[in-house]
Amino acid sequence: MSEVITSVDAVDVRFPTSRELDGSDAMNPEPDYSAAYVTIRTSGGEEGTGLAFTVGRGNDLQVAAIRALAPLVVGLPVADVLGDLRAFSERLTGDSQLRWLGPHKGAIHMAAGAVVNAAWDLYARREGKPLWRLLAEMSPAQLVSLVDFRYLRDALTPEEALDLLQRAQAGREQRQRDLLAHGYPAYTTTPGWLGYTDEKLVRLAREAVAEGFGLIKLKVGADNKADIRRVALAREAVGGDVRIAIDANQAWGVEQAITWLRSLAPYDPYWIEEPTSPDDVLGHAAIREAVTPIKVATGEHCHNQVMFKQLLQARAIDVLQLDATRVAGVNENIAILLLAAKFGVPVCPHAGGVGLCEMVQHLAMFDYVAVSGSTEGRVIEYVDHLHQHFVDPVTVRDGRYLAPQAPGIGARMHQESVVAYRFPDGPQWNNEI
Amino acid sequence: MSEVITSVDAVDVRFPTSRELDGSDAMNPEPDYSAAYVTIRTSGGEEGTGLAFTVGRGNDLQVAAIRALAPLVVGLPVADVLGDLRAFSERLTGDSQLRWLGPHKGAIHMAAGAVVNAAWDLYARREGKPLWRLLAEMSPAQLVSLVDFRYLRDALTPEEALDLLQRAQAGREQRQRDLLAHGYPAYTTTPGWLGYTDEKLVRLAREAVAEGFGLIKLKVGADNKADIRRVALAREAVGGDVRIAIDANQAWGVEQAITWLRSLAPYDPYWIEEPTSPDDVLGHAAIREAVTPIKVATGEHCHNQVMFKQLLQARAIDVLQLDATRVAGVNENIAILLLAAKFGVPVCPHAGGVGLCEMVQHLAMFDYVAVSGSTEGRVIEYVDHLHQHFVDPVTVRDGRYLAPQAPGIGARMHQESVVAYRFPDGPQWNNEI
Repeated sequence: MSEVITSVDAVDVRFPTSRELDGSDAMNPEPDYSAAYVTIRTSGGEEGTGLAFTVGRGNDLQVAAIRALAPLVVGLPVADVLGDLRAFSERLTGDSQLRWLGPHKGAIHMAAGAVVNAAWDLYARREGKPLWRLLAEMSPAQLVSLVDFRYLRDALTPEEALDLLQRAQAGREQRQRDLLAHGYPAYTTTPGWLGYTDEKLVRLAREAVAEGFGLIKLKVGADNKADIRRVALAREAVGGDVRIAIDANQAWGVEQAITWLRSLAPYDPYWIEEPTSPDDVLGHAAIREAVTPIKVATGEHCHNQVMFKQLLQARAIDVLQLDATRVAGVNENIAILLLAAKFGVPVCPHAGGVGLCEMVQHLAMFDYVAVSGSTEGRVIEYVDHLHQHFVDPVTVRDGRYLAPQAPGIGARMHQESVVAYRFPDGPQWNNEI
Repeated sequence: MSEVITSVDAVDVRFPTSRELDGSDAMNPEPDYSAAYVTIRTSGGEEGTGLAFTVGRGNDLQVAAIRALAPLVVGLPVADVLGDLRAFSERLTGDSQLRWLGPHKGAIHMAAGAVVNAAWDLYARREGKPLWRLLAEMSPAQLVSLVDFRYLRDALTPEEALDLLQRAQAGREQRQRDLLAHGYPAYTTTPGWLGYTDEKLVRLAREAVAEGFGLIKLKVGADNKADIRRVALAREAVGGDVRIAIDANQAWGVEQAITWLRSLAPYDPYWIEEPTSPDDVLGHAAIREAVTPIKVATGEHCHNQVMFKQLLQARAIDVLQLDATRVAGVNENIAILLLAAKFGVPVCPHAGGVGLCEMVQHLAMFDYVAVSGSTEGRVIEYVDHLHQHFVDPVTVRDGRYLAPQAPGIGARMHQESVVAYRFPDGPQWNNEI
């Protein structure tokens, strides 16, 4: 009897982060960081874990979207799934009826990402490797075979991708050793949430520099005068050598973004993140042209590889912010890393949230070892909360992520946390409601 | 006591269209045309009806998305909702937690559209007018106040929109009379589903011409040789004067689209619809440049006004295919009509499905009377099925939609149909399952 997938379970896990205004920004005044948490189980008793990140209400819908995919997965032979993860990914994103709810976007696409990532977790555990190393040790041809090029060929052909990966083979071992010895640069968003007082902002900014971070990020976009005050205070607190990124979380129209950014330019912001609608490729290009040398960054709401392709084709971004759970999982993120490498744009992943640091670090480290071959201008976001709920929490030391060694993709939570924060019936919510 | 909204109910209604291969195309081999059917009720005993169209599996998820919005709606004073439908629309699309599942795309955005449209239905019934007339009789200033310009101003300012609507005021009454007397041009997709035999295609194409249609549409994109044969047969059947549009339903990459279209060019296709990913603005622009004079059309999967803005800014389309239920309802569709008018691109709505003809005809007729002021190069899609389930079905005669006179937006179904086709427990499915 061959081993098959016997179940796809999804749980609504929510953390009451809104009580402390952690995570507050111009569009998210009071998020409750949440995970639609997926476990796939096999007849051999193995498990793979994935999740989709949301910010509270709607996490039940995200769970329902994952459950809608379960009939496409339960009963499949594990060898078929792990032997062709691209076909598995296309099975989930290409279902001829479910794709109408996207296609390739929104809750149904994030659901596919969570399930695809759970399959990758199963695969990496079986191989006894952390995801970054599993990927970094694949051959260029294997990596290319994981990508769906249907809508990418006008920007990147399989042949170009293969060539790019083959060129990156030189120095792989050296970079892997370097990564294991020194880790990967991080930046921190901990000081900059919009709900914090000026005093808390200044204190946390100074602490971040003392902890070794060379880049901090502040939320902006709700109140222009307050932004000028806060960015000035942060600049004064950290000095001229530390980079300050700012993040508007989609608050502005195109022209409004340009005006607002000019008012902050004297404080030398390093990048502006999500200045406008995440769908507005041409808008980002117009903003970038107007605000150089401030870099333009986006990605956490960029819903698929076709959108990233266009952001790169239109020269709309200086920084590509990969997200572990917005797109359809590891396969689509490999495509995005290849596109970024082709266009020479550094990838600085979006993290924070629930488990995003734990998951996305693998993709950035794989990129360094086997794709772009560089950490130049590259940093992974770090937010210092909720890590205690994860079985393999990230380790950030002296402003750098240490390379994870545990097998898997990093999404697995402690069972006690899943039970305690299950919404709405877990004890952490029961007392609240 | 002021009247309030007391409930938002959503029902999963599915029609087993896959049994006959009606609706089959390159990406949708066997759709079951479905509606997530919404009724809002007021303490005064009034009702408004809206729906989101899907193609089968996932309709339960669409229903769940609508239910997730209900807490934002129940208890609101009806006068507040109908007095500021833009604020109501932004309340549903801008919820700081739910918007993470989009933003402004996918199931949660279509859910907002269904609820916003239900509120418009309530409003139009109260005013005793069909939606097209309700809108066409509003002042330019009222219409502009319905639109969210946050992300549009770089392409269309409120002042430009006002100016455009004011210029269209001349001749409104004349066009309204003309519409009531002669209706609005239609085209038919009935002959061209991919699952039909050649004989059925030829017979239905001839019938369509005999019924007065000047444009028919064929599905293509699954098999190049079969497409050449089918388009040639259709051209032979209808002669040189009838337009043949073709629809690839996203089957191709950019370069593949160009090659495939060159093989069909000898049969003079009028437009190519959805040649590639609906998200690929730059891809559509590249295809358009290569295949002129074949026109490029898209829209049924274009998820919001920001995407339509870019399709227009990039000169990527010749034909804008408005959809009644993909975006966030009447308000967002007014924005899209204004954008199209600004850029001089004709709107040829997507219809068929469940109730899409009934709903979208109102928007095209409003466009003719009060926005673009023209039917030149404009046609509304017509598919001849499922109309019998609607309380106010469309009337198409001699290839033209007659202007609907009944109050409302056209979404209301017969209660017997809702009960009979409710999934999975309605009698039409009970026998099947």
